[in-house]
Amino acid sequence: MQAKAGRLIGVGTGPGDPELLTLKAVRALQEADVVAYFAKRGSNGNARGIVGPYVRETWIELPLVYPVTTEIHKDSKNYRETILNFYEESVQKVEEHLEKGRTVAVLSEGDPLFYGSYMHLHVRLADRWPTEVIPGVTAMSGCWSQTGTPIVQGDDILTVLPGTLAEFELTRRLADTDAAVIMKVGRNLPKIRKALAATGLLDRAIYVERGTMANTQSVRLAERGDDEAPYFSIVLVPGWAGKP
Amino acid sequence: MQAKAGRLIGVGTGPGDPELLTLKAVRALQEADVVAYFAKRGSNGNARGIVGPYVRETWIELPLVYPVTTEIHKDSKNYRETILNFYEESVQKVEEHLEKGRTVAVLSEGDPLFYGSYMHLHVRLADRWPTEVIPGVTAMSGCWSQTGTPIVQGDDILTVLPGTLAEFELTRRLADTDAAVIMKVGRNLPKIRKALAATGLLDRAIYVERGTMANTQSVRLAERGDDEAPYFSIVLVPGWAGKP
Repeated sequence: MQAKAGRLIGVGTGPGDPELLTLKAVRALQEADVVAYFAKRGSNGNARGIVGPYVRETWIELPLVYPVTTEIHKDSKNYRETILNFYEESVQKVEEHLEKGRTVAVLSEGDPLFYGSYMHLHVRLADRWPTEVIPGVTAMSGCWSQTGTPIVQGDDILTVLPGTLAEFELTRRLADTDAAVIMKVGRNLPKIRKALAATGLLDRAIYVERGTMANTQSVRLAERGDDEAPYFSIVLVPGWAGKP
Repeated sequence: MQAKAGRLIGVGTGPGDPELLTLKAVRALQEADVVAYFAKRGSNGNARGIVGPYVRETWIELPLVYPVTTEIHKDSKNYRETILNFYEESVQKVEEHLEKGRTVAVLSEGDPLFYGSYMHLHVRLADRWPTEVIPGVTAMSGCWSQTGTPIVQGDDILTVLPGTLAEFELTRRLADTDAAVIMKVGRNLPKIRKALAATGLLDRAIYVERGTMANTQSVRLAERGDDEAPYFSIVLVPGWAGKP
């Protein structure tokens, strides 16, 4: 008798509004035996929060809790080892369920392969198990849709930049693109503002936090102070202006 | 007695698979009085095809048919005037329904504000009518998910480039990014290949046509010839490699 084969599914949960899950994602959640998600200590994480309305009592929940957040510096050898061990342990935990023939859905806020932690499991498991990735609406799409900001049109070039870049790098790249999305704003806001001002783009920039969630906020960046922003806030620099 | 107010909704239909519509998009289609979509002559367009399973008999269908495709050169004054007139006429057609208190859903393949024609209506109508934009899964997300390609991670920079750029521009920008998505491949494939080869990225590049649709195809670009590709094919250059 052939046992049921284990199956790995990366499920994009979209940017925040539970109605922005795809039909395919909802079906995957209904069919999942195990639902795994990366989370920080003391929190179940955004992705698990987003799927709240779709929770099933039959789920085996598998939180994968990061051992470090900001206590150790990212470039240190210690950080790299710790995080590598964590991913290996997570792979083992997921694989134990796959070996029992279970379908494991890994939740991923936004889109799984676009800056998502899911890909750390994907690159280690997709060769060994039947795997499917269900794309989701990205956080940036949620932000520009909610604020009604046409971001790119026609032959525009879009650059997606982490706010962690050095000010010089941000400035250089903002000066050389039609449109930009700046992620990981958080403590980098003063630096981002300087780079936008230096390139004459500050007036166009829109600040959005928690796009499409219940407690979302958005404002022209020029009208907002430099007090710390949530890590997952985004700055939009639309390229589309005055075209047909 | 207050009449029902007209309402404009930009509906992202996702990349191709009808199951990749969001729940919110499906609900908007159920509630719509009028369903509008841009199309080329002789075709209803991809977005209308994608929503096939959700069609309702009560819909008033409003195809907005482009008067030109490739017969007139894009940079000519004639093209610009023709296309401007077309957008103004389309706005009038949509507004006639809004004035009758109808909810008009405008279909948009992928995400409405990400290279979508919907935004030509949005910028002309959103100030005058209650408007909502429902984001969708982009074509590029569909392509990297289907091929299981982690595209960006951590502090990666992503550049989205139209294949219409000059070879020098493509080369310069590919040499200066962690990851890239090249849109509008079509006849530009030989030029794109040269730019990728010049930057040492050809071996990493993945070619995808009709991502998530029934007749999708994908292959390492190095293994594909230079025969013409469909206009909406995409080349992915993943940035994520060998990281934790």
